[in-house]
Amino acid sequence: MTPIIQLGLGGVGRALARQMLNVAPKIRRRYGIDLRYVALVDSHGALAGDPALTDTQIHNILAAKEAGQHLDSLSGAITDRHWLELLPATIAIVVDVTAASNHAAPLAAAISAGHRVVLANKRPLCEGFDLFAALTERGATRYEATVGAGLPVISVLQSLIDSGDEIISIEAALSGTLGFLIGELEQGASFAEAVRTAYRLGYTEPDPRDDLSGADVARKALILARTCGMNIPAYAVSAEALFPPALSEISITEFLQRLDEAESEIMSRFQAARANGKVVRYMTRISRDNGIEVGLRELSLDHPLASLRGPDNMISFTTRRYHDRPLVVRGPGAGVEVTAAGVLGDIIATAREL
Amino acid sequence: MTPIIQLGLGGVGRALARQMLNVAPKIRRRYGIDLRYVALVDSHGALAGDPALTDTQIHNILAAKEAGQHLDSLSGAITDRHWLELLPATIAIVVDVTAASNHAAPLAAAISAGHRVVLANKRPLCEGFDLFAALTERGATRYEATVGAGLPVISVLQSLIDSGDEIISIEAALSGTLGFLIGELEQGASFAEAVRTAYRLGYTEPDPRDDLSGADVARKALILARTCGMNIPAYAVSAEALFPPALSEISITEFLQRLDEAESEIMSRFQAARANGKVVRYMTRISRDNGIEVGLRELSLDHPLASLRGPDNMISFTTRRYHDRPLVVRGPGAGVEVTAAGVLGDIIATAREL
Repeated sequence: MTPIIQLGLGGVGRALARQMLNVAPKIRRRYGIDLRYVALVDSHGALAGDPALTDTQIHNILAAKEAGQHLDSLSGAITDRHWLELLPATIAIVVDVTAASNHAAPLAAAISAGHRVVLANKRPLCEGFDLFAALTERGATRYEATVGAGLPVISVLQSLIDSGDEIISIEAALSGTLGFLIGELEQGASFAEAVRTAYRLGYTEPDPRDDLSGADVARKALILARTCGMNIPAYAVSAEALFPPALSEISITEFLQRLDEAESEIMSRFQAARANGKVVRYMTRISRDNGIEVGLRELSLDHPLASLRGPDNMISFTTRRYHDRPLVVRGPGAGVEVTAAGVLGDIIATAREL
Repeated sequence: MTPIIQLGLGGVGRALARQMLNVAPKIRRRYGIDLRYVALVDSHGALAGDPALTDTQIHNILAAKEAGQHLDSLSGAITDRHWLELLPATIAIVVDVTAASNHAAPLAAAISAGHRVVLANKRPLCEGFDLFAALTERGATRYEATVGAGLPVISVLQSLIDSGDEIISIEAALSGTLGFLIGELEQGASFAEAVRTAYRLGYTEPDPRDDLSGADVARKALILARTCGMNIPAYAVSAEALFPPALSEISITEFLQRLDEAESEIMSRFQAARANGKVVRYMTRISRDNGIEVGLRELSLDHPLASLRGPDNMISFTTRRYHDRPLVVRGPGAGVEVTAAGVLGDIIATAREL
């Protein structure tokens, strides 16, 4: 059996557990791999099985979580949150589907002990470069879902590098929310209207500034650049925020009211681009020469990213071999089901190596 | 060490051997995998090493092949072409980068003996469905380069399936040559001119009918459909040919002269589409409901494939999870370097499992 410890039982974590229950029998038949949860862990506790959790236990945990109960209220739950102590003697896969910022060091410790890691959580890869190197050494960590959710991005990049190609540049639209906003602006909405619409429809984070600051995009950019081998400290990546600093410390309600203060700056960018026969995209660009750039960019209409409309992600790889025409991946880059599927793909690929 | 036997030393085979020599030290450091050729085999013989070929031997073979020499003229070459007898006692990876049509059974025999297979050669996967099943059982064969060369297509499809997604349809442009021809027609060239240009520039197979018949696209479509689990016999896949049957048995020279006989039929299709505000693409469509369709199709301008210009391949996956907006991969789908890179990616993924 391949033991799995999953950290996180939010939307992605629950979708992953359900997908796992669904596919485990097929994976067993197809690859002879027996994926088993030995523990499910969240900030409220952990539930461990001996030697593994049963399907019934997992169903009960998911039902309880969806009913708003906490793990520590479940019979058999342990409140000790030191999941490292739950790791079995055989090689396990630790799956981090939290957004926690303090997991890098324990995950690196798990790898030192011979275990493997699969991440949807970006933060462990965004601390010091030494920690990134420790986590990814010898391919011990897979992290497809950290960029583009279920889209093949990290695996494509790693495969290009492994086969001896050289990355010249990566150009990408990595935020579905910002893509949606830009689509609304192109259809004539004001910036304030577009943000309020996205907020109302639940397309933004609970605090829309988490999207509009570009901080999440910057994390994805850092992960891509580091995967290319670029030794870049996290503080060196700055994303262009789509609101003025004066709006950063106020309440969400006040922010939504005062969005008009960001209006003229943003709209003038779009008008200038239109006057030049160009479009504006919130773009990530990574290149050997210029490092990481994250922000609004004017693009000519024949640029691969110019054809993008709405919330799709798009990632364009220009390399020594894909030089005249890039390798491009496009599609929805967010959502619990596709994110969980990206994680599950990594789990299966890892398990096939054990 | 991971022993590799490579069948084929044509353009892709030689590019692969050079890439392998280039990356093997990096792969050893990164993954602790020691990729070694134990034999290089082509239709003129085989050269085997004991226990493996040295880098110098491989360089000499490549230089000799590029100078037009045959393997059996090399010192130490063995003329026994039964490569199955060269397989070592430990698990080896057999790499088929030929276009041979008689490899399916021996490759299946190698798999029965516990070895693994990596294919750029489409033909072994296009015989009876039982042979396809025998080759791909338990993921024993990887074949990324058979569709879209180095683009991530098979791995994406397999990952979608493994994670429990359901494939609703795959729509794809899988021929760079036909994409180039259509681009020329859209820019006003006649069909005969476009084919002659493509032939002169070396964009077509030596006999351009090998492209224009759609037979190669049909093989790719069959591989995609079978990967989806569709039990389809090879004879059930028919591609629309872009020339009349009367031109199929004549010489290449005569064919190029008599291309005008195909002209009016093709041009009327393009004119009709234009009149409808649509575009024409040579499209592969695979769906549970309608099986495999390969041929010219009228597409509305908002269809993902409509944005395609020129020789790029594009593959669009619509699934239960990617339902409203598909997962799309796009880029150059042919060429010896990117094809070899696709094969090498499969070799590394396989070796990591051994």
